[in-house]
Amino acid sequence: MMGRRRWTVGVDFGGTNVKVGLVGPDGHVVGRRVVSSGQREDPTRFIEDVGKAAEELTRAVGARPSQLLGLGVGAPGPVDVERGVVRSLVNVPGWEAVPLRRRLERRVRCRCAVDNDANLFALGEWRFGAGRGFRHLVGMTLGTGVGGGLILNGILHRGTTWAAGEIGHMVVHPAGPRCGCGGRGCLEAYVGTAAILRMARRAIRQSTGPLRTLAAQAGGRMTPALIHQAARRGDAAAQQIWAEVGCWLGVAMANLVKLLGPDLIVIGGGVARAWRWFSPSMLRTVRGQAQRFMAEEVRVVQGRLGDDAAMVGAAVLVWDTNR
Amino acid sequence: MMGRRRWTVGVDFGGTNVKVGLVGPDGHVVGRRVVSSGQREDPTRFIEDVGKAAEELTRAVGARPSQLLGLGVGAPGPVDVERGVVRSLVNVPGWEAVPLRRRLERRVRCRCAVDNDANLFALGEWRFGAGRGFRHLVGMTLGTGVGGGLILNGILHRGTTWAAGEIGHMVVHPAGPRCGCGGRGCLEAYVGTAAILRMARRAIRQSTGPLRTLAAQAGGRMTPALIHQAARRGDAAAQQIWAEVGCWLGVAMANLVKLLGPDLIVIGGGVARAWRWFSPSMLRTVRGQAQRFMAEEVRVVQGRLGDDAAMVGAAVLVWDTNR
Repeated sequence: MMGRRRWTVGVDFGGTNVKVGLVGPDGHVVGRRVVSSGQREDPTRFIEDVGKAAEELTRAVGARPSQLLGLGVGAPGPVDVERGVVRSLVNVPGWEAVPLRRRLERRVRCRCAVDNDANLFALGEWRFGAGRGFRHLVGMTLGTGVGGGLILNGILHRGTTWAAGEIGHMVVHPAGPRCGCGGRGCLEAYVGTAAILRMARRAIRQSTGPLRTLAAQAGGRMTPALIHQAARRGDAAAQQIWAEVGCWLGVAMANLVKLLGPDLIVIGGGVARAWRWFSPSMLRTVRGQAQRFMAEEVRVVQGRLGDDAAMVGAAVLVWDTNR
Repeated sequence: MMGRRRWTVGVDFGGTNVKVGLVGPDGHVVGRRVVSSGQREDPTRFIEDVGKAAEELTRAVGARPSQLLGLGVGAPGPVDVERGVVRSLVNVPGWEAVPLRRRLERRVRCRCAVDNDANLFALGEWRFGAGRGFRHLVGMTLGTGVGGGLILNGILHRGTTWAAGEIGHMVVHPAGPRCGCGGRGCLEAYVGTAAILRMARRAIRQSTGPLRTLAAQAGGRMTPALIHQAARRGDAAAQQIWAEVGCWLGVAMANLVKLLGPDLIVIGGGVARAWRWFSPSMLRTVRGQAQRFMAEEVRVVQGRLGDDAAMVGAAVLVWDTNR
């Protein structure tokens, strides 16, 4: 089917950096580049950097750039998939209604496709990772933002707005804090990185244990990874933060279960590495909120493709898009 | 396609009574029977009553029962659609794992199909009512219980458990009151009939206006219809109840919009008659909670088939089911 065009480039435009991977027909990533994130706010520079990385990766496997099958991009914000336009990026200024597909195609001279990064996480895990063979799959990515992607009846569900699956902006507490999206009490306002760090700054005042020590060693610069490490070292306050994160995730997940009846929920993203610490309260909340036969049908697992999931999903997007 | 078998029987097993209708190929209900609701708790009696009503309705149009195309039932609870088994009915005891399809087929001797009543409301409105031509439709029924049905990409989405679309049991406030389903803070616990009546009983103590007068005339027996009437007559407390109902509906609706990106949300059920009083706060909440481009894409309307929607949907279910 693909002839000599074996290779596809997948791009994961993440909250902190841009990853470019060369993906083979079996879904394996055979080469990687991380594009400097300093220039991300300028779409022209982004396109140039991605184009260069794609060329380098292609040459590194002895192929010519003209032999590329295509290039897919996952962007951290709502995308008009049909027109290939990035509407906006929540955490990156400078991206408003950018016709990324058209501009990329002019640069790389192969077929391009653009979608939301969490949609591509779900697509990647469904085709090559933890979700293989499942019919109704919900993907959730935990990081700076909280993303979601829905595969229903074996189809990536994008809705009328192309922006369906906004799990991070589901309201879990209507009187809760304001969210960046303009809503109130969204899941992301409770379990996004900023919310987790806010909890940690509050907790550290009472802590005399590992959380305080680790934060001091890091010069006061907290990260979810550091809070995870503190939990592993037995810091009760850090463990409590993850338990609370799990409760809020559980509320959103119970709603997903009741509304969509998925076979599988796959969790990924950097924050998901603390799985062991947030999953017990998360699963307990799902069982407490959803009717038993529903809660029993769904499996909740970690992704299997790790940081590659959205890159792989971006390649799958190219393969699945007929234009 | 249907040959001489023009007629299909649609049954709406509602929270308060059982409606049986004879549905023509154009979706019109040409005859109706209401089966006495006193015997609903006994599945054997229910099947006998429905069978008799189907025979009478068929004869009334000059056809023989053997000419029936099929019979569909919407049940107010989770249904295993593949096996035709009613798992349970939240508000009717005596129905646990009833193989309703098989037992009905033995009685009426034509093809039968069973699904959740809110799914059939959505299916009916989609095929013949307010939802014609829409691709992603959410149906919500407001009554004793709060039901939901999802048409996504033109397919009724039932999920793994066959019980997807449980909008009434979406958590809108995780610290809210216990719900009949075992969860906490479900939408139904705020806007189901029992919750509305609870608000009214509280309000009536302060009321000196129409709500109090109407309730006294009714011998203290409150209904949502009575609270609706009080609102129309200018009772501020009654109007406040509907405004509050609208706010909670709006929270659930915002989540539906963010998660599914529907083109259309159709609202039906007896309580929806108070549309004028709850819809302003409902739509305001959706606009406040969902991102603008999402809230602008969705239309929210009342159903067009009135009380017939689930009966018509039950007929559509029969037509669409290939066994």
